[in-house]
Amino acid sequence: MPKIKAFIFDAYGTLFDVHSVMEKCNELFPGKGESISGIWRQKQLEYSFLRQLMGRYTTFREITKDALRYACKEAGAELSRDAEEELMASYLKLKHYDETEEVLEKLKSHQTAIFSNGSFDMLSPLVEQSPFASLLDEVLSVDEIKQFKPTPMSYQLVLDKLGVRREEVLFMSSNTWDIAGASSFGFHTAWINRKGVTMDELGVEPDYEYRDLRGILEHA
Amino acid sequence: MPKIKAFIFDAYGTLFDVHSVMEKCNELFPGKGESISGIWRQKQLEYSFLRQLMGRYTTFREITKDALRYACKEAGAELSRDAEEELMASYLKLKHYDETEEVLEKLKSHQTAIFSNGSFDMLSPLVEQSPFASLLDEVLSVDEIKQFKPTPMSYQLVLDKLGVRREEVLFMSSNTWDIAGASSFGFHTAWINRKGVTMDELGVEPDYEYRDLRGILEHA
Repeated sequence: MPKIKAFIFDAYGTLFDVHSVMEKCNELFPGKGESISGIWRQKQLEYSFLRQLMGRYTTFREITKDALRYACKEAGAELSRDAEEELMASYLKLKHYDETEEVLEKLKSHQTAIFSNGSFDMLSPLVEQSPFASLLDEVLSVDEIKQFKPTPMSYQLVLDKLGVRREEVLFMSSNTWDIAGASSFGFHTAWINRKGVTMDELGVEPDYEYRDLRGILEHA
Repeated sequence: MPKIKAFIFDAYGTLFDVHSVMEKCNELFPGKGESISGIWRQKQLEYSFLRQLMGRYTTFREITKDALRYACKEAGAELSRDAEEELMASYLKLKHYDETEEVLEKLKSHQTAIFSNGSFDMLSPLVEQSPFASLLDEVLSVDEIKQFKPTPMSYQLVLDKLGVRREEVLFMSSNTWDIAGASSFGFHTAWINRKGVTMDELGVEPDYEYRDLRGILEHA
């Protein structure tokens, strides 16, 4: 394996815990928080895939709002404008996973970046409120090219922006579909399988699997 | 609205009940049938979307097998080779919805076709064992162009094969993502919402919504 030059991180689910919006959901819709936040996340992903397939790109922020509206309808919860704003705002202050700062600190001599389906209006505030904003060289969003992961064109953005070759990249994600897409594109991949879930059967496997981000330090 | 010339039907979930495999699942994995068949269907769809996005097309038959393997792993059920064959075979004899034959009979003076993500090795035996095989003019599969629905290129196949214009097509599906894709492409669409579920928030709406196929006869 050639030396890894760039450590690239997915954001949602990988550095930031998307289910931390569940508490806010539960506060606004007592007893329905788990169900609403689960459907919200599932539809957020599904809508990004479907819009890419249909050729109807819109920002991840709009998609996240659409998914929230669906989730509330589906759960029989009335979503007021205030509640919508409050829940969308909770996406800007997701909790990060504990080990993130320590790991980024140890990767200082390498290129590091976030590469996310999120648009900058969601990503920038989120990263800025975290303790590791200054430890990242770049925050890259697919919104620049309007190609959601996992299309090959989306991953190409990382190479174009960082000036590295695909075999010099180690890409981290907790999302199985993102790992499959990145592996298929030719990145080295480390699946951060925090919850011990089952890998999807998509004909591609991660190169490495770890329970949290600390495992990747063996490649530093 | 111009006169409808071609009535085009999705297969799985629209003419044929995919959850009729649940019984076979329950027979092989007592108590786990509902869970396995639910995950199986969900992953079958997800894998077709993801493979299209990643540029890793394979037939719907292969995808269906992959999804079954995932579902069994996820449910902690051991899938023997015999069980896999038996379950895959159950996809070739899905129950059709009761009203299908009567509706196709009444559409005899129009062009009628199935248009499905299924490959012919799945679709042909399924249609042939049904009582309405002779009532359909065509069975069209995306496998011919290796473009899964809901890409615009997939729906184009219907026009190319039937020699109609998009506004002359009424497209029926129970699947919200399929209705969104077909509407976005420019077909007239009738959502066969058998279970009274919530429409997805994808920025496109069906032209018509019915509880079963009989509703479409008002356009004949």
